[in-house]
Amino acid sequence: MYVIWGMKMKVKIKNFLVLALIALTVTATWSQEAESEFIKSIYDQSLTKGSSYDWLHYLTKKVGARLSGSPQAAAAVEYTRQMLDSLGLDRVWLQPVDVPHWVRGEAEQVRIINSTVLGTQDLHAASLGNSVGTGPLGLVGEVIEVKSLQEVEDLGRAKIEGKIVFYNRPMDKTLHRTFMAYGGAVDQRGGGASQAAKYGAKAVLVRSMTTATDDVPHTGALRYQDGVPQIPALAIATRDADLLSQLLKQEAVKVFLRNTCRMQKPEPSFNVIGEITGSKYPNQVILVGGHLDSWDVGEGAHDDGAGCVQSMQVLQTLKRLGYRPQHTLRCVLFMNEENGGAGGEAYAKAAIADNIFHLAAIESDAGGFLPLGFGLSADAEVIDHYLEMVMPFNDYLQPLGLELTKGGGGSDIGPLRPQKGMLFGLSPDSQRYFDYHHTHIDTFDKVNERELTLGAAAMTTLVYLLDQLGSP
Amino acid sequence: MYVIWGMKMKVKIKNFLVLALIALTVTATWSQEAESEFIKSIYDQSLTKGSSYDWLHYLTKKVGARLSGSPQAAAAVEYTRQMLDSLGLDRVWLQPVDVPHWVRGEAEQVRIINSTVLGTQDLHAASLGNSVGTGPLGLVGEVIEVKSLQEVEDLGRAKIEGKIVFYNRPMDKTLHRTFMAYGGAVDQRGGGASQAAKYGAKAVLVRSMTTATDDVPHTGALRYQDGVPQIPALAIATRDADLLSQLLKQEAVKVFLRNTCRMQKPEPSFNVIGEITGSKYPNQVILVGGHLDSWDVGEGAHDDGAGCVQSMQVLQTLKRLGYRPQHTLRCVLFMNEENGGAGGEAYAKAAIADNIFHLAAIESDAGGFLPLGFGLSADAEVIDHYLEMVMPFNDYLQPLGLELTKGGGGSDIGPLRPQKGMLFGLSPDSQRYFDYHHTHIDTFDKVNERELTLGAAAMTTLVYLLDQLGSP
Repeated sequence: MYVIWGMKMKVKIKNFLVLALIALTVTATWSQEAESEFIKSIYDQSLTKGSSYDWLHYLTKKVGARLSGSPQAAAAVEYTRQMLDSLGLDRVWLQPVDVPHWVRGEAEQVRIINSTVLGTQDLHAASLGNSVGTGPLGLVGEVIEVKSLQEVEDLGRAKIEGKIVFYNRPMDKTLHRTFMAYGGAVDQRGGGASQAAKYGAKAVLVRSMTTATDDVPHTGALRYQDGVPQIPALAIATRDADLLSQLLKQEAVKVFLRNTCRMQKPEPSFNVIGEITGSKYPNQVILVGGHLDSWDVGEGAHDDGAGCVQSMQVLQTLKRLGYRPQHTLRCVLFMNEENGGAGGEAYAKAAIADNIFHLAAIESDAGGFLPLGFGLSADAEVIDHYLEMVMPFNDYLQPLGLELTKGGGGSDIGPLRPQKGMLFGLSPDSQRYFDYHHTHIDTFDKVNERELTLGAAAMTTLVYLLDQLGSP
Repeated sequence: MYVIWGMKMKVKIKNFLVLALIALTVTATWSQEAESEFIKSIYDQSLTKGSSYDWLHYLTKKVGARLSGSPQAAAAVEYTRQMLDSLGLDRVWLQPVDVPHWVRGEAEQVRIINSTVLGTQDLHAASLGNSVGTGPLGLVGEVIEVKSLQEVEDLGRAKIEGKIVFYNRPMDKTLHRTFMAYGGAVDQRGGGASQAAKYGAKAVLVRSMTTATDDVPHTGALRYQDGVPQIPALAIATRDADLLSQLLKQEAVKVFLRNTCRMQKPEPSFNVIGEITGSKYPNQVILVGGHLDSWDVGEGAHDDGAGCVQSMQVLQTLKRLGYRPQHTLRCVLFMNEENGGAGGEAYAKAAIADNIFHLAAIESDAGGFLPLGFGLSADAEVIDHYLEMVMPFNDYLQPLGLELTKGGGGSDIGPLRPQKGMLFGLSPDSQRYFDYHHTHIDTFDKVNERELTLGAAAMTTLVYLLDQLGSP
């Protein structure tokens, strides 16, 4: 077989490849009939009898927002424990974990107070998670717009001191995968406050992390650097960010800020865990999980109620189908992904201490949208071995509209990386995620039952294939 | 190369295939750099400066529902003509077409009147398009449930005469592609009335065509058979269908029906057409299109405002990029897809009479959701030739999350089939489509800007590739 330049020969080679693949498919059909049949039963069961959508309804509408340390987070722990308990699993338990307890306080105020054009104008704002408050009287400052943390350093103390720094670099709309655009902008939210504080700023405003242009402010965690003064930080809606930016081109703008959010003392909480014990390798775990906490606005429907109920449905489906796994299958609902990651850390610490190897962990934390595949990551030493093992799964996955690719994982399962197992992230359609992410409109009605359920079925399929064909 | 049974050898063969594909990719990179760069510019332009979402806002919120023959349909014609006219195309015109003019009349009533369990109970109902009405006094009849047209024949006149036939076969939720489930159920809506009338039924109720369980009735066209009495036909919401079915297991159920819908005289209307004339093959057309009419409930946002504005954006994007096509590119907004198909028929008739060959026609009429690919169909004589020609496009499409497959098209471009060109249908994520299809909740807010725009970019990319690389 020669590789020849030009389209015509290329087509011929392609035809040959197609024939070769068909031949492989035919041989595959015989040895893989049982697997394909079982996968069909997973989908039938999931799409007609799965409980994920009903569970999500309860979690969003009856429990609601459930930030770490809140009474609602405790309700979510108890509800999901009871639901897992009702599935007839081998074991359901709570794993204690101490979590930070941040509260938003009164409704935030961000008000332009001196515009010759607009007069007084309120902006749609939300304090960033972990932020300190302004105090009850609020504060006033002149706004200076920047596009990056680097720009703050470049401007230096002379320009920044005493100001309110306004980070306004948008997410890049031209990127097909919105998580890439998020990754390219979110440093402003996470690190912008401390960066500005180093140069004497009194507060920061951050353009909301979304590709949409609307009036919805997006909260999300900031991290204060040790040894740097802690200053208040708030997100403003993208339409308001555009307005403020335009105004700043014309005149100096002063803003009044008031928020009363604060970090309180840590509280006890739990990861919620359910398990079907492996018949052959009880100490080798295949984990599915999401995070049970959410931000305190909205209902935490896509982020990450969806991932929780999908993970629960994986065990429900396999249990109902009477499947006896070789490996131990665990559903883990992590606490405190949003503003600390304490649940993921505690889980991995215990697993490593108890020498419970996690052959694979699959996290769903990108929304309950149409599943398009999974991304795999692992320690550099072992990734090639794993890729060779799991890439043939694509024969099963592609007819389901799924593709397994390199690069994935999730923040709750990340701490398991030293065990050198496989870390998978479910990859759904990402186009709508940042319309709702960390907002008061991340509500139940934004989740489609079939898309949510197809995600659960996809995860169940991957768990099944890993249990049948995977090895360390 | 031997095809050997078993997984290990399979992996080796696969590795070989992967290497071969990498080699092909490298050769491809050199010859295809210009194409890839232009496609990138299509996406950048579409995602940052496209007008489809704004146009859709006007079409849904300012014009609204636009059933054939209605004043709103005329407004939609005029609005889209003006918008196309603003793009600086070579030619924009209206193609006359006479259309049926059906009107819904007063709000429908479907009421259980004799239940010992429920007493009187109103059901959520919508007359099927083209249906006759009951007359102002309504009618009362006993309900008989069936699961198919065949069952009506099996039951025969003895059981059917004088009854209200209730078609209640659900769409199959286990089918991954919801259009397959729709295709498996929609004969009840299209042909159920005449089938029941043949055996003396006085009216029919049809379970709404959706996978969702809710209170939303779904209208849609029925076709009366010639020579069979025309009886009223209404869709009821799926939750009501389940209720009625359960009740029928316990007792005989009588229902009162009243609707005042009617077919009026045909009205003049138009297809709206915009064109960039081909520099090399002006008489060979690559067409993009959707249908401008919608049902009279809701706003016709996904069905098919989305397809119209996407098609308009294809020409907008290529025009703005200064692209000079070899073939003539046409955007055609068809009238009367929903209840007659007159626009598609008139367009094809004129094209065939004028000897304007349509190398390809791409229809978007499956909703403005995340695009996943295109399906291709063509006359049996030429399909293999076309498949061989366009399958290599997948090298460009797959990195964009798109796949070109066999089997597709659309009802408006179907009449072009005798020309033996290519007929493509855009295939978006189908999971949510039947939540909204033909209902009062098919509204602007159900459309995501990025998903809509990605569909337009996908169509633009296919048009570009066909223009560059396609030949009859």
